[in-house]
Order: sequence, then C-alpha cells, then structure tokens
Amino acid sequence: MPRYALLIEYDGTPFVGWQRQKDGLSVQQVLEEAAAPLNGGIEPVIGAAGRTDAGVHAEGQVAQVDLSADLPVERVREALNTRSRPHPISVLSVTRPPEDWSARFSAVHRSYRYRILNRRARPGLDLGRVWHVPQRLDAAAMHAAAQGLLGYHDFSAFRAAACQAKDALRTLDRLDVSREGEEVVVRVEARSFLHHQVRNMVGTLAQVGRGLRPVNWPRQVLDTRDRGRAGQTAPADGLCFVSVRYAPPLDWGA
Amino acid sequence: MPRYALLIEYDGTPFVGWQRQKDGLSVQQVLEEAAAPLNGGIEPVIGAAGRTDAGVHAEGQVAQVDLSADLPVERVREALNTRSRPHPISVLSVTRPPEDWSARFSAVHRSYRYRILNRRARPGLDLGRVWHVPQRLDAAAMHAAAQGLLGYHDFSAFRAAACQAKDALRTLDRLDVSREGEEVVVRVEARSFLHHQVRNMVGTLAQVGRGLRPVNWPRQVLDTRDRGRAGQTAPADGLCFVSVRYAPPLDWGA
Repeated sequence: MPRYALLIEYDGTPFVGWQRQKDGLSVQQVLEEAAAPLNGGIEPVIGAAGRTDAGVHAEGQVAQVDLSADLPVERVREALNTRSRPHPISVLSVTRPPEDWSARFSAVHRSYRYRILNRRARPGLDLGRVWHVPQRLDAAAMHAAAQGLLGYHDFSAFRAAACQAKDALRTLDRLDVSREGEEVVVRVEARSFLHHQVRNMVGTLAQVGRGLRPVNWPRQVLDTRDRGRAGQTAPADGLCFVSVRYAPPLDWGA
Repeated sequence: MPRYALLIEYDGTPFVGWQRQKDGLSVQQVLEEAAAPLNGGIEPVIGAAGRTDAGVHAEGQVAQVDLSADLPVERVREALNTRSRPHPISVLSVTRPPEDWSARFSAVHRSYRYRILNRRARPGLDLGRVWHVPQRLDAAAMHAAAQGLLGYHDFSAFRAAACQAKDALRTLDRLDVSREGEEVVVRVEARSFLHHQVRNMVGTLAQVGRGLRPVNWPRQVLDTRDRGRAGQTAPADGLCFVSVRYAPPLDWGA
C-alpha cells in the first residue's frame, strides 16, 4: 500500500478537533470519508502530526494515509479537496514520503502560534480565531516571563489532566511574545508538546501580562510540577498549528 | 438628539449585507436592535458610510446614530457590543461627530481591499474571506492594467444594473495590485464608488491576470461605458471595506 503525506489547512471552529469522536464531526472523519473512493471504497485511517483540540486551527498540519493504488499526488489532492466540500478544510499539497515515515513519530519540530486580541472591543472579523483579552497586556513582561520556560524541563504543571504522554519531559525551543498592533502574538516551537501545554502556558503568561503575577511566576509554577498552580487554559480559538518539520524534510513541491 | 459616530468591524459571511432587508439578517438590523435600549426602547435608524453587499466584510465601516440621551461614548460602545452577541460584529470605537456630520455624505475618501487566493488548493482557513482563483495570475500585468482606470471617468462599464447613483462619474485615486505570497491583493481608494464597482474592476483585472485579455483591455472596457463588456463580478467573499476618511477627521481616541 503506497503511503502519502498530506499538508493540510483548516479552520477548527466547526470541528470537535482533529481526531474522530462519537459526538461530532472531526477533521479526520471528513478526510477519511473523502479518501474512501481513492481506496477501493474503504475509508482509510489518516493519522496526523498533531491531534489538535476542538476549535484549534491549522495552516500546516501534516497527515499520512495509505491507499490501495499508486496515484499521482495531484490527483489525491484534488480528489480530497473536491470531496471535503463544503467543510473549511484544504489539502495544500500531497507528496510521497520516505519508507517507514510517520506523520506523528518522524516529526522533529512543531510550531504553533497563539493570537490574543488585546483591545476593549470584542472580535468581529476574527471571531473564533483569537482569544479576546480586554485588559491591557504587557507583552514585554510576558516575553521576559516566557524565557524562563525555555529548555528541557518536566512540564507537568502545564499538562492537561487527560494527557496520555508517558512522561512530561519536553524541550521548549522557542516561546516568543510580541505585540503586533491590537494583538499580542505568542510563537512557540518544540519537538513535541503535551496535551494543552501551549494553551496552559499562554493562560499563565497572560496573568503576568495583566500584572496579576510577577515575571518570575511562570518559572516558579514550572518548578512545582503541579497543574493546580498554573493559570487558566487559554481558549482554543487563538491557537493555530503552523508547521511540522521532518528530517530529512518532505518535499511539498512549489 | 445627540449624534454618535460608530467605527465598526464585521465578518459579512452570515449577513444579507449592511442594509436591512426582508429576507435575512443585516448588520444594520443587529445594531439597530442592540441600540434600542439606549434610545428609550425605540430602535434608531443607523446609517453607514458604505452599504456593503451580502458577504462583504468590514474592518473600518463608519455609521451614525442619533440617540435620545447624552451618553458617555464608552457606554454606547460597550452596550452595542454586549447586545450584538453572538453575531460577528464589533463596535471598535464611538465618538461624537461635529454638527451636521453625516457618515455617508461627509465621507471624503473610502478604501477597500480585495483578496484573491491564487493557488491550486481551495481555501480552508480563510473560506469566505477570499476569492479562490486556481489558475496562476500575473499580478504585475493586473497592476499595469489597473493604472489605466485611475482618474476621473464615467465608470458605467463597471456599474451594477441595480446601481442607484445619479451618474457614473467618479475619480479613482488608487488601484494597486500586488502578490503577497499565495495571495493577489487589490487595494482601491476613491471618494466614493458605484454599486459593484470594485468587484467588477477586480473581475475584469483577473481576466488580464489569467492572460485571457491584454493589459490595455480594462481601459478599453471603461471607454465603452457598456457594462456588457467587463469581466465577471468578483465574488463578495474577497472584499473588505477598510476605512473611511472625513474632513475634518473624526477622533476615534486611542
């Protein structure tokens, strides 16, 4: 069975998340149903690099699928895009990965962006795409606080109760916070993340940004390894899965 | 009756347009219903600088409303935003305009942006916010063609049949086309526009971008003053009403 790698973009708003669930429509279900005609009428399993939660968006999700036939990659892309209408999902590119490549386990680097709309008025144009924080945030203080979380740590304090990872040891490579007009944007990179790790870090940094906690507080929370100490889980709306990197890199074409 | 000026942002997707209609929900209706409690329980009339069509977005629409009471502008903004939930409309700022100011007739400059997603794959994340053109567009040719439309002309060739303006004489101040990654973005400015003028110009320029028509064709179409000669009306999705300018300028605060 030839394996295909898919580069995917979606608006997470109408979905229960990437993964199939009994109680609603998932991105995975839409794509698996769309892929059935390419697989002898049988829905294939499509596994992703990041199992995004309900409401989380993606501009560079990567997934894998094994199909019964050896098809031109353009045909796979066009067929998936035609059959996933009218859902807000688009397969940007399809390529043939190396042998034994896994969308999830071969990933060496993942990148997320979190957008906070920081103004009095609620979002109109970007409703569902940003977290609205009406109180003025000090982005410089948030950035300073974020630097204390970089590196190799036990991130238990920022882990969801439902997290299924064996341990909470992760290496955080980047956690930048910057003001961009009315928005405060958080850019975060690591080989892999725990469930809710990005949203819990953002919620904790926001407390610093509002002046409710000192700049060294997020690092203190990290050191406790106690989930009860961190700030709220920031809402899904603001989070976007930006990109995944593999070694060797996949060739997505032009 | 004190007059208030409103600076408004909205996602046009779920609306029949700015203006009240019998067959669906308009931005005007949501705001007028939201304003009733500020006006002794009676819905006031809210008039806008630009009567955007169904599906057209705004990040800087300006509207006017007369209310029975002299209220702090922050209170007007907060009340409208609270009561217009959950619709994707946000009042960004409220100010008290000069005497005899009209949102529509005092405007001296209007600015629109049109986004074309120019790639094979259909939109996922920005569905409803862009016009998808899968064929490669030559943005430089579109820009060159656009320059032939600048200045004072009779724009009858780019006017909707339903246009209610007395004449089609307008001065086009800017019509820039540029490639920004996967998008071709059109920026257009004038004191005022005819109904569908921007979308008809974009649809015509797209024919040049696809190589179906020469660079001097849009100007030839203009000179015929015949609507039957122009390209298709580009879809509403890609259009956003960016800003309105007044003389003297309104002070929207910080």
